[in-house]
Amino acid sequence: MAKSDKNEKNERNVESITNRDVDFAKWYTDIVTKAELADYTSIRGCVALRPYGYALWENIQKNLDQRLKETGHENVYLPMFIPESLLQKEKDHVEGFAPEVAWVTAGGSEPLTERLCVRPTSETLFCELYAGIIHSYRDLPKLYNQWCSVVRWEKTTRPFLRTLEFLWQEGHTAHETEDEAEAEAVRILEIYSQLCESALAMPVIKGQKTEKERFAGAKTTYTIEALMHDGKALQAGTTHNFGDGFARAFGIQYTDRGNQLRYVSQSSWGVSTRLIGGIIMTHGDDNGLVLPPGIAPTQVMIIPVAQHKEGVLEAARQLRDRLALVCRVALDDSDKTPGWKFSEHEMKGIPIRLEFGPRDMENQQAVLARRDTGEKRTVALERLEDEVSALLAEIRASMYQKALDNQRRKTFTASTLAEFEAILRDNTGFIQAMWCGDQACEDLIKEKTAATSRCLPFEGEAVGDRCVCCGRPAKHMVYWGKAY
Amino acid sequence: MAKSDKNEKNERNVESITNRDVDFAKWYTDIVTKAELADYTSIRGCVALRPYGYALWENIQKNLDQRLKETGHENVYLPMFIPESLLQKEKDHVEGFAPEVAWVTAGGSEPLTERLCVRPTSETLFCELYAGIIHSYRDLPKLYNQWCSVVRWEKTTRPFLRTLEFLWQEGHTAHETEDEAEAEAVRILEIYSQLCESALAMPVIKGQKTEKERFAGAKTTYTIEALMHDGKALQAGTTHNFGDGFARAFGIQYTDRGNQLRYVSQSSWGVSTRLIGGIIMTHGDDNGLVLPPGIAPTQVMIIPVAQHKEGVLEAARQLRDRLALVCRVALDDSDKTPGWKFSEHEMKGIPIRLEFGPRDMENQQAVLARRDTGEKRTVALERLEDEVSALLAEIRASMYQKALDNQRRKTFTASTLAEFEAILRDNTGFIQAMWCGDQACEDLIKEKTAATSRCLPFEGEAVGDRCVCCGRPAKHMVYWGKAY
Repeated sequence: MAKSDKNEKNERNVESITNRDVDFAKWYTDIVTKAELADYTSIRGCVALRPYGYALWENIQKNLDQRLKETGHENVYLPMFIPESLLQKEKDHVEGFAPEVAWVTAGGSEPLTERLCVRPTSETLFCELYAGIIHSYRDLPKLYNQWCSVVRWEKTTRPFLRTLEFLWQEGHTAHETEDEAEAEAVRILEIYSQLCESALAMPVIKGQKTEKERFAGAKTTYTIEALMHDGKALQAGTTHNFGDGFARAFGIQYTDRGNQLRYVSQSSWGVSTRLIGGIIMTHGDDNGLVLPPGIAPTQVMIIPVAQHKEGVLEAARQLRDRLALVCRVALDDSDKTPGWKFSEHEMKGIPIRLEFGPRDMENQQAVLARRDTGEKRTVALERLEDEVSALLAEIRASMYQKALDNQRRKTFTASTLAEFEAILRDNTGFIQAMWCGDQACEDLIKEKTAATSRCLPFEGEAVGDRCVCCGRPAKHMVYWGKAY
Repeated sequence: MAKSDKNEKNERNVESITNRDVDFAKWYTDIVTKAELADYTSIRGCVALRPYGYALWENIQKNLDQRLKETGHENVYLPMFIPESLLQKEKDHVEGFAPEVAWVTAGGSEPLTERLCVRPTSETLFCELYAGIIHSYRDLPKLYNQWCSVVRWEKTTRPFLRTLEFLWQEGHTAHETEDEAEAEAVRILEIYSQLCESALAMPVIKGQKTEKERFAGAKTTYTIEALMHDGKALQAGTTHNFGDGFARAFGIQYTDRGNQLRYVSQSSWGVSTRLIGGIIMTHGDDNGLVLPPGIAPTQVMIIPVAQHKEGVLEAARQLRDRLALVCRVALDDSDKTPGWKFSEHEMKGIPIRLEFGPRDMENQQAVLARRDTGEKRTVALERLEDEVSALLAEIRASMYQKALDNQRRKTFTASTLAEFEAILRDNTGFIQAMWCGDQACEDLIKEKTAATSRCLPFEGEAVGDRCVCCGRPAKHMVYWGKAY
């Protein structure tokens, strides 16, 4: 293919993104494929993460892994297979997961005597390990984490948001008391929330799930809920306190400080590549991806202007080497036109484009163009490192603020079911409404509005004193919403 | 459990390691479990990697990942499932792998219309991806790599060396010409060799596999072969040049510089958690693991002596903070006795033990004890960082030299089959012997001696001019050996 064909082809690609406000779902999958984040495969519901998409995951992983190690967590790796009998040991858990697992029934040419499922989550395997290595209170707490992929046999799938196989981390901890397991679940939720708000510039609501929405086998489930640009909620991470339910089913006992045999208490928690879907839908626009600086594989892309002019490329390379000490920078010195480069790097959401040509060289300056707002500023080369560092921080703060404004603008209050339904006829967003605590009301709201309870928030005041559904005295303020 | 019980129990564990020269296999599994690298699970042939074992893998991964990124490779993640029809597209490949794959036949409660295998390796998936994204010579080369786990349904297994599921990286590249694919296979072998020799202090022989030992579907396979303490060989990593075989089977074509449609040429390559088995069997001794500094999770363990004495712990913490700037250091300030700590950290193979007590404090000195030789030296605190850095380098060099000496001592030369058999009656090691190139001889040698051809080495002179087996003119000098 000749160069001009290739360019033309790519420019067509750039132009053919669906408008975000016309068809949000189509716009989303356009970005996934055109920013080269992921590709479809011949396996239903499974995608291939391409280098740019995987680099986002690596950066999320690096950020979170450091936070987890700093708080005393250790990484392990457990098998991907779970024997059917092991999965069945905890009753609620197997009921929750058995309908959506993949079953291995043969190894080589031999049928297996017992089916193995591909892990949908690894509570049962961690329990088996813990039962073998925990003996005394001196062995506690165990704060283990695992980076791996899991499989859930979903009917409808969408890249990053819901796929048959996805990458995640799953933490599984064991403690002396239920209070400690509870504290761990809350502590990790705070870590997840910091990850989202700082590295991803994505505001989240922290809260507790209702019993109906709880994880299979958990006593309490906590969640962080983000609001996407289209007003739908995204459950971005969850943490669970199991009490001693699993420990009893798996016989995980220890000798306590008073020399008595006791069951441990446990927690588990996870975030996944779903966060990448969250980034796309929180920040993306009609020109493509918009990446928060915290996880952008390239934070600054240098684009030389009139790069054939003497000294331009050399000076641009020097700028790259200088900036490499303060950020993730790259130089696009390919023979494509600057215009083509602009579109490509815009599509890929690179936070800052640095333009540098002969006149800039003469004036000892460079132009910094923000991806998120399009704003351009000219800066003196002698202050380049400081200017870039400051601008990256500014971009994060303003992306966060913009997302927070969207979330607030799309958060409504309802005091009756009629009001609730009326709001959702014209809008999509969070509904704050009071709830009596009865699951019948939760079910009815879902039936009438398609909105589910997202969480009982940690922060947020009562918006009334009667249940939005039945009018009886309310127990909780709840965030409701349609969710991915 | 009271403190004394706990200590006693652990000391018993330390004492109960099998002697390395009495029963090497038992000694090996003792180290795996007692150094807390891995645990058995209820899934046949699958182990759980515990924090200490996984930390070794993380360090290997970090080291290699950096080398791969520096040479232009990009990470991706492809599905763990391969549809049966996709696996069957390349004839040699499916014959090689189909007998040892795990089959998924149901998802949720529904039987699948087509069986999926759990990837034993991902050539077929990479080919599918490449067929979709490679169009022009401008899209080449593609240098992709993936960190994941794979499954091979082995009959007999041993932790790290051969397990049903194992962690590895698999590189898959596509090039314009076969020469480039060949050069890539050789370049990666050199990177693997550097990883082993520098980070793992494990000498390797680089060479090419015979046709019989080639990877299923490859035109040439390269290997690095290490010799374990017991004289058995370990295939530590392999790289493959596929030519355009897979490209033809999967239709991966591109428009070349002369505007002609051509097939790409490909390579693939991998190393796995097997390397951890190599580290154990290269360096371990009767007191446990001996870790090369390059990947030791803790390089220096500070053990305070008489830590209840005023100022000792505080000063020890200051030493830790100082050393943290130049190495991976930890302080064991638990209430166990120094003797217990010595045994524990010895078992875990920590390269340097730093002893520090009241007298050292007074004399402004510390004692550094080497794990590999047991040698102790007293160093002045003011020179601590330099002394530790130098000692870590010295340890690596001397561990490497010791392993190289073992390899040389256990490398023999045979010029007849009778000699070959006689050597292996009393020894285990590499046999250097000439070969005519005929597979019948290779088969016969294996039948008579249980030794297989390990490689046709890149370096190494002819040791005769006649085939060790048939006496006809020889074509190659070959390293033979019994292998893990």
